Amino acid sequence: MRLSRYFMPILKENPKEAEIVSHRLMLRAGMVRQQSQGIYSWLPLGKKVLDKVNNIIREEQNRAGAVELLMPTLQSAELWQESGRYEAYGKEMLRIKDRQERPMLYGPTNEEMVTDIFRSYVKTYKNLPLNLYHIQLKFRDEIRPRFGTMRSREFLMKDAYSFDLTREDAIHSYNKMFVAYLRTFARLGMRAIPMRADTGPIGGNHSHEFIILADTGESEVFSHKAFTDFEIPAENTDFDDVAGLQSIFDKWTSVYAATSEMHDEAAFNAIPEGDRLSARGIEVGHIFYFGTKYSEPMGAKVQGPDGKEHPVHMGSYGIGPTRLVPAIIEASHDENGIIWPESVAPFDVVVINMKPGDAACDDISEKLYASLGNAGKDVLYDDSDDRAGTKFATADLIGVPVQIIVGPRSAAAGEVEVKDRKTGAREVMTLEAALNRVTG
Amino acid sequence: MRLSRYFMPILKENPKEAEIVSHRLMLRAGMVRQQSQGIYSWLPLGKKVLDKVNNIIREEQNRAGAVELLMPTLQSAELWQESGRYEAYGKEMLRIKDRQERPMLYGPTNEEMVTDIFRSYVKTYKNLPLNLYHIQLKFRDEIRPRFGTMRSREFLMKDAYSFDLTREDAIHSYNKMFVAYLRTFARLGMRAIPMRADTGPIGGNHSHEFIILADTGESEVFSHKAFTDFEIPAENTDFDDVAGLQSIFDKWTSVYAATSEMHDEAAFNAIPEGDRLSARGIEVGHIFYFGTKYSEPMGAKVQGPDGKEHPVHMGSYGIGPTRLVPAIIEASHDENGIIWPESVAPFDVVVINMKPGDAACDDISEKLYASLGNAGKDVLYDDSDDRAGTKFATADLIGVPVQIIVGPRSAAAGEVEVKDRKTGAREVMTLEAALNRVTG
Repeated sequence: MRLSRYFMPILKENPKEAEIVSHRLMLRAGMVRQQSQGIYSWLPLGKKVLDKVNNIIREEQNRAGAVELLMPTLQSAELWQESGRYEAYGKEMLRIKDRQERPMLYGPTNEEMVTDIFRSYVKTYKNLPLNLYHIQLKFRDEIRPRFGTMRSREFLMKDAYSFDLTREDAIHSYNKMFVAYLRTFARLGMRAIPMRADTGPIGGNHSHEFIILADTGESEVFSHKAFTDFEIPAENTDFDDVAGLQSIFDKWTSVYAATSEMHDEAAFNAIPEGDRLSARGIEVGHIFYFGTKYSEPMGAKVQGPDGKEHPVHMGSYGIGPTRLVPAIIEASHDENGIIWPESVAPFDVVVINMKPGDAACDDISEKLYASLGNAGKDVLYDDSDDRAGTKFATADLIGVPVQIIVGPRSAAAGEVEVKDRKTGAREVMTLEAALNRVTG
Repeated sequence: MRLSRYFMPILKENPKEAEIVSHRLMLRAGMVRQQSQGIYSWLPLGKKVLDKVNNIIREEQNRAGAVELLMPTLQSAELWQESGRYEAYGKEMLRIKDRQERPMLYGPTNEEMVTDIFRSYVKTYKNLPLNLYHIQLKFRDEIRPRFGTMRSREFLMKDAYSFDLTREDAIHSYNKMFVAYLRTFARLGMRAIPMRADTGPIGGNHSHEFIILADTGESEVFSHKAFTDFEIPAENTDFDDVAGLQSIFDKWTSVYAATSEMHDEAAFNAIPEGDRLSARGIEVGHIFYFGTKYSEPMGAKVQGPDGKEHPVHMGSYGIGPTRLVPAIIEASHDENGIIWPESVAPFDVVVINMKPGDAACDDISEKLYASLGNAGKDVLYDDSDDRAGTKFATADLIGVPVQIIVGPRSAAAGEVEVKDRKTGAREVMTLEAALNRVTG
């Protein structure tokens, strides 16, 4: 992408309304724009990161056997009356009347709707287990949306819903998502700690939050330091191996970890002092097993091997991509801007032409742009008329992992400078060496 | 994907509520499910097709230089008051009050919001041309939603918005989208005819609808038959070639074509009788040039080369992916079900194991499933316990282009039967030959 043809509105000033660093950097880098309170547009640079986050989530959901569909944003109130949550949900639910005066709502979550889909089609245990997920917009009318897309009203959520005949099977489905989440966050460049959690309005009695540590986190968390050494389950993990997944779950829940709501001071103090971790954290995922809470009132039953009807055991599993993007930034930035993990960087590399119009600069820059693109790399080519200082600042701000700087003097000698955004290390090398460095 | 682990709820009965063939087939194939009047879930098979349609749209938008972002679904009423459309839009606009009693709406289109984004960041003609698009849910509260996702209330739309300094530049931007649309529909396996169109509530005086011919189309269309011979612009079309694009536009608009609203009986009758085409059509795209209709009242101005401020000339360009899916089916099906063009087929090939449990059948089926998957093909493996007749009917219904049938007798001899869904041609061949047929 040539910067001259892109839309990446960089802000020079620090936006006053941004209280936390991720919000500030997302505004400054032209990733998002607030349209109404707690409602954001994702500008092109932000959209690219969001897509990459979604794709990693999707790959890991699919790997764990979940099947993707797409439920609508608007739901009928009737469904929620069936579960009893229509009244209970309170003012966070955005209630709407259509032109026929029918009561609707903008879905804050989809337990009811997916249960309705399930009961319409699935009649026998032979079609279980089943896990259906979608990545879809939600709306929660928070009284105080803040921190940019970290806590917005309209937001994107990946929500998965599992259906099983028995509690035991449902726990295996839960463990699949537990493992998928560990892998997902690791691929996003973050180490997330699963913590026993409160279930809130979703319900149930078996639930974990996944928390990443960040100074600006909203909640206080307490854990054993051992988590930093635990191994992330491998790509070839067998998700049908019931005992294997249970042992991963057991390992990851073997040491103390809790959010402040679930905190047990005595248990924490029993950890040797040097192993105690007390920090601030951001919730990036939340999984629930809630048994027959929805299947019972909504009549989602299957015939079991015994020939009788049984309400299915369910769980739900949420990750918020629009919250993950700022969470990644909170965990990975410096004073000059964002430092993207390679897996979600909006571009793999930025080619900075320091002097457009200079024949050698243009020639080398165009060659790099074409060759890297042909090699399958996603390249931003800064062909703008900005001053060199502005170009360097922009490249650091948007956090693309590798910068290739093409200046008139080195270009004349067939050389470029390659800078690693994370370490700041710079190295002068030939055009060919630079190509190999990025594509090799 | 193993069918035993997928969620593809096939209906055996013809759904009573479906008036047109695409709606009937989408329900029967388990592609969609109505959740409320005119509001649909896209079940996994439908979601896969929708994603493929979206990706082709996206590739052609990007090729034409449009830049993707993502605007939210909910908008503030204020923006629409600025353009004067808040009152004018009528009951199709879903109006909402949030918990603070602020008037909001579920966006039926995004001219106002994108103009607001533009005016916030772009100040000089040097940043033009610019074309921003998104693929996002819209809501139009139609009094009579019908025909499944062909005319639903909540629907997906790709809407692009172009910004230029002058009318002349804006016409070039219009032509870019005109060409992108010709390519998009062709890649989706359809021949769309551009027709001069009424502009309705979007406004402007230069507009084309893209219509595909189908017996069940909602509107009557009249055109010259020459369209069937016109060449689709090539992949390497130079979108910066102003004269080149204009000549493509001129060619495609050189012969008579009009919807009933714009129909000129005399002009039509001037066509030699054998060249007249009078048929029913489905609108699958609509493009508008509307000059300064929004930029003027909303103050979206840029500094020109003359140093003065000028309101920008705009256009908007819509395609409805959730309508395109049924439109493709209307144009491509037979009495047994859907016949997907390869470009949007939910799977490239289905492997039908006629006797799961039979060692030879299982062995060959698993080999095919693994090898085709490794070769990058999207494979559905029917490993279910259904009877052979049911499996064949399902495979025909869901319309996957190639079926590989693994029966016990031929499997024992190392052979399979390959069936082309479109022609119905069947051929017995070795496992290796079948692999080569599909991957070659």
